[in-house]
Amino acid sequence: MPKPRPIQILPIGHIPEIRPGDNLPRILLAAAKKSRLSFQQYDILILAQKIISKSENRLIDLTTITPSPRAIDLAAASDADHRKDPRLIEVILRESRRVVRDHPVLIVETHHGFVCANAGIDQSNVPGETVVSLLPKNPDASAKKIAQALLKLTRKKIAVIISDTFGRPWRLGLTNVAIGCYGVPPLVDLRGTRDTHGKPLHATIIATADELAAAAGLAMPKSASTPAVLIRNFAYKSSTEPATKIIRPAPDDLFR
Amino acid sequence: MPKPRPIQILPIGHIPEIRPGDNLPRILLAAAKKSRLSFQQYDILILAQKIISKSENRLIDLTTITPSPRAIDLAAASDADHRKDPRLIEVILRESRRVVRDHPVLIVETHHGFVCANAGIDQSNVPGETVVSLLPKNPDASAKKIAQALLKLTRKKIAVIISDTFGRPWRLGLTNVAIGCYGVPPLVDLRGTRDTHGKPLHATIIATADELAAAAGLAMPKSASTPAVLIRNFAYKSSTEPATKIIRPAPDDLFR
Repeated sequence: MPKPRPIQILPIGHIPEIRPGDNLPRILLAAAKKSRLSFQQYDILILAQKIISKSENRLIDLTTITPSPRAIDLAAASDADHRKDPRLIEVILRESRRVVRDHPVLIVETHHGFVCANAGIDQSNVPGETVVSLLPKNPDASAKKIAQALLKLTRKKIAVIISDTFGRPWRLGLTNVAIGCYGVPPLVDLRGTRDTHGKPLHATIIATADELAAAAGLAMPKSASTPAVLIRNFAYKSSTEPATKIIRPAPDDLFR
Repeated sequence: MPKPRPIQILPIGHIPEIRPGDNLPRILLAAAKKSRLSFQQYDILILAQKIISKSENRLIDLTTITPSPRAIDLAAASDADHRKDPRLIEVILRESRRVVRDHPVLIVETHHGFVCANAGIDQSNVPGETVVSLLPKNPDASAKKIAQALLKLTRKKIAVIISDTFGRPWRLGLTNVAIGCYGVPPLVDLRGTRDTHGKPLHATIIATADELAAAAGLAMPKSASTPAVLIRNFAYKSSTEPATKIIRPAPDDLFR
């Protein structure tokens, strides 16, 4: 039996500081070349949300924001430990359709439907003291656009995942999850398949895009400049389903 | 600059059906050899909970269980879609210190402190119609025991993670997470480090053991016989902290 090819997690180095309007697909190809990597058919490219947000100019300077009374109230009510700038809270509220918890951390449902702290807005890895980055408006569309550009440039089918690090209830620590995808299935449904004893598998839908994002997270330490990672030799069926499919519908969610 | 070595995810094939009392470290070494893999210093070995539970005889035949009145009530109150055997509910209750939600899915806090559906008990990949497998009694101790045996057998430091697939609020699909570990840090605290612009990183504790488990999950499809995976070339600081460190302390948990 031939030894199966191992799944590989390949960080792409040499990615410069990304600026609004930059052509990310061309930059990624050049960076891969400098890293002595070439894109291969069916590679999965995981991109940190931050570089998408920068290229799409999803940056806001807090000095341009006037906080609403609600934002001022929430800031005043916050713990000293978690005290937030009312202008930042205002931006979080604008990016959200609902506040899920407001104390001690602001956990919201974003306009996309993601439940996360601070609407995914943060101040790290952004130039300027008062500038924050927002999540992309439509991360699935961003992933599709990049996959299509890479297909044109390389003639290879590259699946794309846009990832961000989210916290979760019950367990400490952030993990990298998929907030946008194209080409790779967000969820893989194993129901109807049987286990090794021939018994049907129950409730076995795997969040494959999240596992891919988490795997890429191993090569994406926050403080380093590695916002792009290739995963190679992972077998998957091509899919055009969006990452928003991973969002648990609110009526079925026991913890909102 | 030398090309960095990619992180590799290497499934170990040829693992036979595990039985109570089996010597897992020896079986894993033989299976790796048959798969033409050799363990290397600092490899991380991720083992599916199921083979640990089997080797530790954490199996129960439901025909030996008399359900309590509470288990019978919970079974009667359950949806037709999620109707459960009252004997199975009884076993779930015995493995739990608290019921977090009882409808439509039984979500509990296990005696270890993990919050998960059905106390991690399931019927797949276990021989016999009425036999279920429980989580290991102390997955951290199981991981340590296996790591120490592998050190003796191979003279190599191999970190060990025991993993299981858990669901989560807000997002659909299961992901593979760490329920036990030895040698690898469960959480990596990046607070105090600075981003590429020199700004301090806030709230950046990464659930590294969970990301490693998720990465291994990519090579562990439920229906296949791949309960063991090696991750190679992942840089980490050796640690003896247990996976129970990942459990968010109940008083800090906004969603319990």
